[in-house]
This record gives sequence, C-alpha cells and structure tokens, in this order.
Amino acid sequence: MSKKITFDYWKHLYSNRTRGMVSSEIRNLLSLSVLPDIISFAGGLPEVRALNYQKLERYIKRTLKADEGISLQYGDSTGYYPLRTKLIEVMALEGIRVDEEDIIITAGGQQALDLLAKVFIDTGDNIIVETPSYVGALNAFKAYEANIIGIPVDENGILVEEVEKKLKRLSDNKEVVKFIYLVPNFSNPSGFTLNLERRKKLLELAKKYNTIIIEDNPYGILRYEGKAIPSLKEMDTNGDNRNVIYISTLSKLFAPGFRVGWAVAPRLILEKLVLGVQSAVLCNSTFSQRIAYEYFSDPSWKDNIVEFIKIYKKRRDAMFAALEENLSGVATWSKPEGGFFIWLKVPDYLNTKELLADAVRKKVAFIPGTGFYPDGRGGNTARLAFCTESSENIEKGIKILSEIIKDKIRLYKSSN
Amino acid sequence: MSKKITFDYWKHLYSNRTRGMVSSEIRNLLSLSVLPDIISFAGGLPEVRALNYQKLERYIKRTLKADEGISLQYGDSTGYYPLRTKLIEVMALEGIRVDEEDIIITAGGQQALDLLAKVFIDTGDNIIVETPSYVGALNAFKAYEANIIGIPVDENGILVEEVEKKLKRLSDNKEVVKFIYLVPNFSNPSGFTLNLERRKKLLELAKKYNTIIIEDNPYGILRYEGKAIPSLKEMDTNGDNRNVIYISTLSKLFAPGFRVGWAVAPRLILEKLVLGVQSAVLCNSTFSQRIAYEYFSDPSWKDNIVEFIKIYKKRRDAMFAALEENLSGVATWSKPEGGFFIWLKVPDYLNTKELLADAVRKKVAFIPGTGFYPDGRGGNTARLAFCTESSENIEKGIKILSEIIKDKIRLYKSSN
Repeated sequence: MSKKITFDYWKHLYSNRTRGMVSSEIRNLLSLSVLPDIISFAGGLPEVRALNYQKLERYIKRTLKADEGISLQYGDSTGYYPLRTKLIEVMALEGIRVDEEDIIITAGGQQALDLLAKVFIDTGDNIIVETPSYVGALNAFKAYEANIIGIPVDENGILVEEVEKKLKRLSDNKEVVKFIYLVPNFSNPSGFTLNLERRKKLLELAKKYNTIIIEDNPYGILRYEGKAIPSLKEMDTNGDNRNVIYISTLSKLFAPGFRVGWAVAPRLILEKLVLGVQSAVLCNSTFSQRIAYEYFSDPSWKDNIVEFIKIYKKRRDAMFAALEENLSGVATWSKPEGGFFIWLKVPDYLNTKELLADAVRKKVAFIPGTGFYPDGRGGNTARLAFCTESSENIEKGIKILSEIIKDKIRLYKSSN
Repeated sequence: MSKKITFDYWKHLYSNRTRGMVSSEIRNLLSLSVLPDIISFAGGLPEVRALNYQKLERYIKRTLKADEGISLQYGDSTGYYPLRTKLIEVMALEGIRVDEEDIIITAGGQQALDLLAKVFIDTGDNIIVETPSYVGALNAFKAYEANIIGIPVDENGILVEEVEKKLKRLSDNKEVVKFIYLVPNFSNPSGFTLNLERRKKLLELAKKYNTIIIEDNPYGILRYEGKAIPSLKEMDTNGDNRNVIYISTLSKLFAPGFRVGWAVAPRLILEKLVLGVQSAVLCNSTFSQRIAYEYFSDPSWKDNIVEFIKIYKKRRDAMFAALEENLSGVATWSKPEGGFFIWLKVPDYLNTKELLADAVRKKVAFIPGTGFYPDGRGGNTARLAFCTESSENIEKGIKILSEIIKDKIRLYKSSN
C-alpha cells in the first residue's frame, strides 16, 4: 500500500490558483449531512425517486438497441444533436427560441460555468455577480482568478442601479467587465427573482457597456405560484442577440446523476466553448445524453414536471409554515415562488457557522451563508433547501433548528 | 430564431488563452471521417460493439434497482467509492498497488489532464512532454498557457539524457519544471514504449530535480506481444511515493461513452484535484460510475479484455502486413507491441496535411503528425489508428493511402 505523506512536498509546484486551496471547514461539517439519519436542508438534491424507473429502464434499453454502439462511443464535443433538438422544446416552455446550432451540451450547468470562465477570465479580470451568489459559480470563477465584484440583491433581485454605478466607474477608468453572472429565477441561494423592470435595465446596461450577462436558469420551470417573467435571453434574441449567454441543466427536470446541462451562446462564443469541452473532457457522455434524449422524447416528461412541482410546492409550504410557527419575530426569510431554496437571516450577532456545528450534533444540516459571498460576508445568513426532505422532516428539522437559534439568542441576551 | 453574427463583437472580452483559439483546419477535414463510407484511421475508437449488450442491460437494471435513487443523484466528487475498489483490481493487473483513498475518478483520462494542468500550471510555467505527444494533453496544457518543452522519442521512448540536460539547464537557471508528461506504454501517437532502464533513470531525475512525472497509461493492458515493463507508478510506490501521478481510463477497457477515467496521486495533490472536480463539474456521473462498477464486478470483464486483445492484435497485424506490402522502402513506421496506433514517416519532402486532403477525397482518413508537436514540427509524419476498422478495410485503406503517397513521390521526383 502506498505511503501517506502529510508534509506538502509539492508546494513549489502548485499553480497560484490552487496553492491556497484546501477543503473548507464547512465542507467537512457537511460531509456529515449525507448520513442516513440526518435531516438535511444542505444540498439541493432533487427528488429523483419520483421518476418512473420502469420507463427509465425502457429508455436505456432503447439507447442500447437503437444504435451500432454509438451511445458507448466517443461523441460530438458540441453535444448529441437529437438531444439539442429536445432542449429547444424545453426552452420553448420559457419562451426562448433558439436553433440546435446555438446550443452546447455540458456536464451539468457547472461545466458551462467552468468553460465560460476559461473562455473569458484572465487573472485579475473584473466580473460582476449578485450577492449572495451560487457558490459553484463563485468557485468556478475563483479558479480562474477573477476579480469578483459582488452587488447585493433585494427581494426583486440584483440592485441594477448599483450595477450601473459600478459599470460606469470601471468604464470611466477604462476597465472592462468580462461578464455579469446571476440566477434571475428563484436564485440560489436567496430564492429571490429579478423583476421585469430590472431585467430590461440590466440588458440595457450590458449593451451600453459592451459586456455579457450569464443568465443561469436551473429553476425557472419549477414555479409554484405567480407569473413567469420573460428571460433575459428571450429579450436579447428579440433584439440583436449579443449580450446574453443562457445556462440551464437537466439536473432538476430529469436527474443530476447523468450530468447533462447546456449553454446557449452566440455562435462565435459557442465555438470556443466547444474547444473548451475538447480540452477538458474530449466530449461529454454520449450514453447519458442519449438517455436524456429518450426521456424528453416521451411526452410524459411534462407530467413528471407537474409531479415535481407538486412535491416541491408541498415541501416549500411546509417550510414556510414551520418557519412562521417557530421563528416569527426572531428571524426573517425569503418567500420564493419556485426553486429549491429559502434564505434565512438571523440576528446579526449570531453566526450561522456556529449554529451549524450545534445543528449537526442534533442531526440537522443547512449551509451557512458566508460561502455565498466572494468576501466572507453573510455571517448571520443561511441557505435552507426545502427540496429534499419530506414535509414531516421539514417540520421536525426547522423546529430543532429554531430551538438552537432561540437558545443562542437567549445566551447572547443574558451575557450582554 | 436567433440571429447569426459573424463579426466577433466579443473580442475584447475573451481571455488570452482563448483569444486565438479557433477550430483547426485538420479538425474540419476530420469531421468528414465520421461519414459512414469512409475508412478511418483517424480517431482511436475502441471496438465497443464487442461488448455483451445483454449483460450491459443487466448491469444497468441492477444499477437502477440497487439503490434508492443514488445513481441518479449528485455524488461524491472524489468518485463512487465501490468503483474505486474495482479500479484497484484493474491496476493490480499491471502491478500497481494503491488504496481507494489514493484514487480520484474523472471524466475519462482527459479530465485528469485538465485538472492536473489547473492544479500545477500558471501562465508561462515550464512542463516537459515527449514529442510527438498525445494531442489532448497538449490541448489541456495549452489552455493553461504552459511553456511546453518537447523532448524527442525514439523506439525506446523519451530520450532521458535530453530530459536530463534540459532539467539541469533550467535548474541552473533557477527555473522549475512543473511536471514531465508521457504515455510510457504504446504511446499515443508513436506506439513506442519506454524501456525499463529509461523508466528508472527518468524517476531518478524527477526525484533529483523535485518534479512530478504524469504517467498516462490508457493502453498498458492492451499488450499483444512481449513482456510488460513495470510502471513508473509501481516503481515510485515501492520507494517514497512522491513523484508519479498515474492516469488511466475505462474508455479502452470498457467504453468511452460513459466517460470514466481516474488518477492516482499523493493525497495532498488528490485533495486539490477533488476541489478541481467540484469547480469544473460538481461531481462526475454517478450513473456511469455505477454501471462501470457492475461491469467490473462481473468476472467476465477479463474475458472481454482477452477478446479486445484478440481483435486489436488482428487489426494491428493486418496494418503491419499492408504497410509492408505497399510502403516497404518508401516510408517507415513504428512496430507497437500493443495499444491503438502506428506512427508513419514519409519522405521529408512530403506533407501529410496535403496527403490527408487527397486521402479524404478517396475516402480514407488519418491524422497528420504536426498536431502532436507543440511547435508544429512533424510535417512528414502521421498517426494511423488500427483499432477501429476491420482487417479488410485496413488492407483496402492502406493500399489507397500508399498509392497517394507513391503518386506524390513520383510527382516530386519528376519536378525536381
């Protein structure tokens, strides 16, 4: 067996981007959240058990039979063409009209983020993100050593007037912003949705300052109430189709285990993304893409979405009710009309990392908020995923979490 | 439908690494090589149709039934643990003994290369590669803007005395070499194998100059004659286990369509690779990894390897015979004892890119050699993959290719 070495003999060989990279304390705590008896509000794990496994088996049989080994072979780096045709139908549900040639298939939305970072970011380049922001995106952008500029959100999404100020100041200074990244629908982690007026304004700003908006939309179709707002991509394709790159994933509409996502980008950018796929993985799994194609070829996929929406809405409502019952007047939280996440704010003298340590001991997990900020703010915030646990567990878990919070508040007040 | 824009409006936004990146002329020519009626010596496509599809169906059924949706869910970024246990058995066939904790599962070997580049390379960093070298590795390293130093190979692999000179000169100059990359067994594209003496010397050099060897071994098990040579990894684990990172893939032992490969690295480096997976794709496909686990849990996988070896040996021998018959005295070629590729050298006044254009018109494809050099050398070389076509097609294709070569030689001689 190989020897274990704890002395970092290779320090002089690491790149700058990874020299300081170590597994985080929170990640280590959260590794406990996969234990079977824990109530987890941590990961945004979709309810894949709601899929019809007999049908899945049929799709896979068809995948194995339909071709002369094509699904087992290396494939097209741009993605399996027939699946791209299906993705057009998926996007049409949200009003986006594109061609197969506008789409690249990626390993989940995450690979699209990594490739976009590779295509656009040199060390020190400016990018703008909403804060709090999806932690996977922050990680992808940090790996290319971007200068990440955070702009706060309120319940109507990113503060566009702040974006404008920042763009103007940088532009006056002859500095470029490579892109603006955000999740406009039921954002991860905040649950907030960017309103129509701000979408229009943001697109105007991108055009005025010659930059790109990366619109990451994994949850748009999972709306439990309210009316859908046109996507930035839809607005842009109705215009000169220059400023929006759209990302989505099948992880929430089908299953994350297949790692299928996609990006829609202007074709010259798409070409570079394809070269990025080639250097990163040669091509993505043909087998996975073919199964996804079979799934979306069965019209019943839309019934599955209806079922998913029913399940998640029930869980969201259970979490709303439990929070209302246990934390009313003590904490505040977002009221998402869709998606997977509720954003919790506790009094600012509390630290959610410390709360997590206590919670894990009592078999409840969530994600402390600081990881969603590029600069370590958000110490009194937390992301609660309502998508994974049953309503009963949600009720139980929120009760436990609330007791921990209220204990900490009492402790704080008695010692101050 | 979205508008097509050919003016590159986004030029000011690209990163340095991608600004000049465009799809290559050769790639465009080769896109023709997937046409059904072409004889392709271009891609190294394994014979996946030799797999037992009924068994595959059984593995997949078991995958869907065994777990409560685990194979459809997000998974461990380090890779599915039970599959790592199986990979230990695969590596043991080549004398490598490691633990599950030494292994990270990647999307094919290519993702391991991309992640290693991410972990080690800053812009301008020195790395050493054998030349000719695997083009996918060169692409991965170029994407991180490495200074790629090519060291030639002969029929016994990389010229270690040249490596030594280079390492010494750089070291005298206080320059670091981040790693040395090579495919020691039946190299892609040359087919050459690094002999034992040079392996020992190369490992000594890595230790002396405090650098890492990336040993990429996709073909080691596919040996058709001769005796296996201990891997660099095996030699290193018998010592202080510091200097070799080992990469392999299931693309040749199972099927590329699942995108499963792996790397074995010292644990502190492995931690960084895991963080790299997280920022690149969150995790790799649990579904694919679970199917691979089922495949390697069936002892018959070793019979499949025997079958693969039989098929590829026959094709290699057919290509040897056809080359001997048609190009003896005109060109030279490598005599690989395993793997997928033969390296062809034509007279140095010929250009294989021009030959390819003619060949594709006559429905034969191969890869011109220049792409396998970091500096565009190798204009009179070509890679011929013997793994894909039947013996009959190989005979036919080599005959056509030989006629083109001989025509060009006649033309050259008559005009000089």
